[in-house]
Amino acid sequence: MDELTKINLLYDFYGDFLTEKQREIFELHFLNDLSLGEIAENYGVTRQGVYDIVKRAQDILTEYEEKLGMVRRFAGLEKKVEKILQSLKELEPGLSEDYRIRIRKICDDVASLLKEGGE
Amino acid sequence: MDELTKINLLYDFYGDFLTEKQREIFELHFLNDLSLGEIAENYGVTRQGVYDIVKRAQDILTEYEEKLGMVRRFAGLEKKVEKILQSLKELEPGLSEDYRIRIRKICDDVASLLKEGGE
Repeated sequence: MDELTKINLLYDFYGDFLTEKQREIFELHFLNDLSLGEIAENYGVTRQGVYDIVKRAQDILTEYEEKLGMVRRFAGLEKKVEKILQSLKELEPGLSEDYRIRIRKICDDVASLLKEGGE
Repeated sequence: MDELTKINLLYDFYGDFLTEKQREIFELHFLNDLSLGEIAENYGVTRQGVYDIVKRAQDILTEYEEKLGMVRRFAGLEKKVEKILQSLKELEPGLSEDYRIRIRKICDDVASLLKEGGE
């Protein structure tokens, strides 16, 4: 999992624990891809001030991950789901069209375990 | 999901956010099945005092669940996994022993998504 994907997942899972201001600046920086300088201009604070807020927000998200491991669990689930999808696909050759359709439907259900994070 | 299963899951997921004392008393009450009176005797506090700690601990766990929904996600995952296992089992009749063995192996992998909570 690359670092930006991980940051996005951390924010999805634990964003509720940030203050409104931390969330705003975190989103501008990581989701809307604004630079520290651009954010600083909009907020009338220094670049260092923006950096400190982003860094503090990241630290908070990381602390929650250390206690709860939701990103780690998600990554583990993803790996297992991929393996299951592979095994299912390997069943297809040699089976009739009816079975292949049913297997593809099961693949969709297995893949959906990831899309909605098990919800 | 029954209430005690839910309390156990809440504790598994969010127990790290309780103080050591809260964890001790919570475990004595819910995992070791001691009564409030028995715990009060061991700790030299009133039954009401023990009740307050247990109640406070439950409130903390519930607040984390409201923000993070790990128990809700787990319950959703469980439901979907059961449906997938059912669909896989329904494939078996009419297939050769070789396919049935491979499908049972896939079922084990699907079931393991729950056992380890996706880790």
